[in-house]
Amino acid sequence: MTTIDLPLTPVASDGGCCGTAPPPVDVAAARDLARTFKALADPTRVQLLSIVTAHEGHEACVCDLTEPVGLAQPTVSHHLKILVEAGLLEREQRGRWAYYRAVPDAVAGVADLLTSLAPSPLTPATAPTGA
Amino acid sequence: MTTIDLPLTPVASDGGCCGTAPPPVDVAAARDLARTFKALADPTRVQLLSIVTAHEGHEACVCDLTEPVGLAQPTVSHHLKILVEAGLLEREQRGRWAYYRAVPDAVAGVADLLTSLAPSPLTPATAPTGA
Repeated sequence: MTTIDLPLTPVASDGGCCGTAPPPVDVAAARDLARTFKALADPTRVQLLSIVTAHEGHEACVCDLTEPVGLAQPTVSHHLKILVEAGLLEREQRGRWAYYRAVPDAVAGVADLLTSLAPSPLTPATAPTGA
Repeated sequence: MTTIDLPLTPVASDGGCCGTAPPPVDVAAARDLARTFKALADPTRVQLLSIVTAHEGHEACVCDLTEPVGLAQPTVSHHLKILVEAGLLEREQRGRWAYYRAVPDAVAGVADLLTSLAPSPLTPATAPTGA
């Protein structure tokens, strides 16, 4: 176990019943989140994001990514484009090759929002005072 | 800022170059993650999970869920079924109504895995010693 600081989603302070429950996400936030989850709703794209993140400097050339996922470069580039459009990766052309870099704040933002959908084990417990 | 304890994903200890980068997820884990993300790749399902989590006791009757998302009960039940199949909600029939309860460990598990894909801002920083 490691102690870290996380900016937690603000807890509802409108006098609601459940101290540990965050307010539901609104329609616009749900739409944004769903769009990001759609970009990640493919095993190859999860692998690609994971491989780029694990790479030195959290950056990888497209030429480093074809072999680990066992796919041709156009297919890999297509998946990478979807991750770039979702804001999870950044792309930079350097000479012949495109390089992809993880955008940790974007990934962490989605993880934080997801964490806010599972308040019990991650937010400090507040013992219910009622029945 | 709130200090909480999180079981962090183990960091690679194979003598690799990047102390803060976790190893890439394997194919099976990528497939599981993608399946969960697919369940969340719809704004209505994100809203439903969020509303159930925010509800008293992190549980809601399907009869409480139709109005907030503005959809008919069969459509809402269809979306809820997908969330149940993904392990993010549990369903219990009580008399006339089905009740849905959030599975915080499942949601938190996905959030943790996602966090492991964005190591820089969330894991304790280790200054690189090499070039």
